[in-house]
Amino acid sequence: MKSFNKIAIIGVGLIGGSIGLAVKKRRLAKQVVGVFRRPSSLKKALKARAIDRGTLDTAEGVSGADLVIIATPVGLVPAMAKKAMPHMAKGAILTDVGSVKGFVEREVVGSVSQGIKFVGSHPMAGSEKSGVEFAEADLFKGALTILTRTRRTDLAALRRIESFWKALGSRVKILSPEEHDARVALVSHLPHMVAQSLCLILDETSEPYAASGFKDTTRIAASDPAMWTDIAATNAPAIEKALDLLIRDLCWLKLLLSEGDVRSIGARINQAKRIRERLEGGAKGRRA
Amino acid sequence: MKSFNKIAIIGVGLIGGSIGLAVKKRRLAKQVVGVFRRPSSLKKALKARAIDRGTLDTAEGVSGADLVIIATPVGLVPAMAKKAMPHMAKGAILTDVGSVKGFVEREVVGSVSQGIKFVGSHPMAGSEKSGVEFAEADLFKGALTILTRTRRTDLAALRRIESFWKALGSRVKILSPEEHDARVALVSHLPHMVAQSLCLILDETSEPYAASGFKDTTRIAASDPAMWTDIAATNAPAIEKALDLLIRDLCWLKLLLSEGDVRSIGARINQAKRIRERLEGGAKGRRA
Repeated sequence: MKSFNKIAIIGVGLIGGSIGLAVKKRRLAKQVVGVFRRPSSLKKALKARAIDRGTLDTAEGVSGADLVIIATPVGLVPAMAKKAMPHMAKGAILTDVGSVKGFVEREVVGSVSQGIKFVGSHPMAGSEKSGVEFAEADLFKGALTILTRTRRTDLAALRRIESFWKALGSRVKILSPEEHDARVALVSHLPHMVAQSLCLILDETSEPYAASGFKDTTRIAASDPAMWTDIAATNAPAIEKALDLLIRDLCWLKLLLSEGDVRSIGARINQAKRIRERLEGGAKGRRA
Repeated sequence: MKSFNKIAIIGVGLIGGSIGLAVKKRRLAKQVVGVFRRPSSLKKALKARAIDRGTLDTAEGVSGADLVIIATPVGLVPAMAKKAMPHMAKGAILTDVGSVKGFVEREVVGSVSQGIKFVGSHPMAGSEKSGVEFAEADLFKGALTILTRTRRTDLAALRRIESFWKALGSRVKILSPEEHDARVALVSHLPHMVAQSLCLILDETSEPYAASGFKDTTRIAASDPAMWTDIAATNAPAIEKALDLLIRDLCWLKLLLSEGDVRSIGARINQAKRIRERLEGGAKGRRA
């Protein structure tokens, strides 16, 4: 991959910090600059060696960068994009790492400044941990990154961003924002919401009986609330559709239980096991 | 703990095999005999050193044993108990390791032979793996074992069984069969059914996008289908109640999403995270 001159990362947490570490380790840019809201975050990112230098001034941070990456919670992406674009160089590429893409495309693309090329990215990596102190240079290795393409997407910029994520060790798939949001609602957003529900309905007297089956199933309920509130708010229609599918299936199971239809219940359990085992041969991605 | 003379284990899979290994490692019995239906299973159990000797003859296997442990899938426990009891010594203790206790109490206690003392056990240990080849002598170390007590329970036998599980490294709690079934439906049976549902509603085009968040949440969907069909069939009313709680909560979430009530959604996510983090300080049990 042709290296970048200057990469600016707006928001240097787990994902932004891991991008910084990965870029520096692989020498994919001459300079990695972090853009921060709080001096304390800047200090932590420097300490983690995730950036070469940091600034609280967005204009200064993004000026002259040939790649700007917004790695804030998804709800802040449009506002940060609008703040950054007027100060970006002509021909520079802008991307984000948000878990919801329709919202970002709608809000950002409408206001893209002339000469700025926007490509949405969603690296399906991370964990229930958050913060630059958990950043890792190899976080994206073997993970899947989804890029979004619309009829307004600049194809050269799309290829450049594809090479960038591949250089970070990621596999890449390209989807429309709508298809991205539907798939991810099913494989990521829904499981998070369900894990939260399982915790919420647990009465205190039952808590001592929660062993590792429960703990594994609900581990992702400990994920960053700000990030997940954002995701719920920005991908609500797709999550509602996924919830509908699940609720319908659970109601069906309830009926089978009340009818004592052991044969159908057994068939469900067998089928689920086959699907789950097939996944082990599939995506090697980490947390998403 | 006063050691046993002869322990007979009926059904030597992951749990039965781990009991055998644990008893032998800790020298809690002079002799551990496995009772099998298939010669091939007997051979595997011997190879895993989970038993001292094995037999296909239930009568011979349990005769003279002061402790008989039924470690078959829960649906078979009553039939195995009825087969074993006529050949058991007077004063011998009978226990099982099933994940559903109301069913076992109802079916077994009614037919307990004179002089046989029945105490239900549920070691909340195991994994999505099954088979004696995955048995471990320390499977129960730090795990929780629930014993059931009814007004017919022999208290001396209950104490003896409590000491037995503690000698295997387990913590012990004593509940009524009904309370056991309600708690375990919520913390174990429901998460399994939900993990299965999440797999069942996944369309094939979405499968490549399932990363480790999905995989962790659905790991338990790969558990032994025979065992879980049995559990669903024998604890249906408690699982239906738990399903009701979950379905109601998911419908509530759907309403919040459709109304765009971001504040309430955020409050849910925060609350779920607090509950989930509290669990880390709680039960240290393994798979259940």
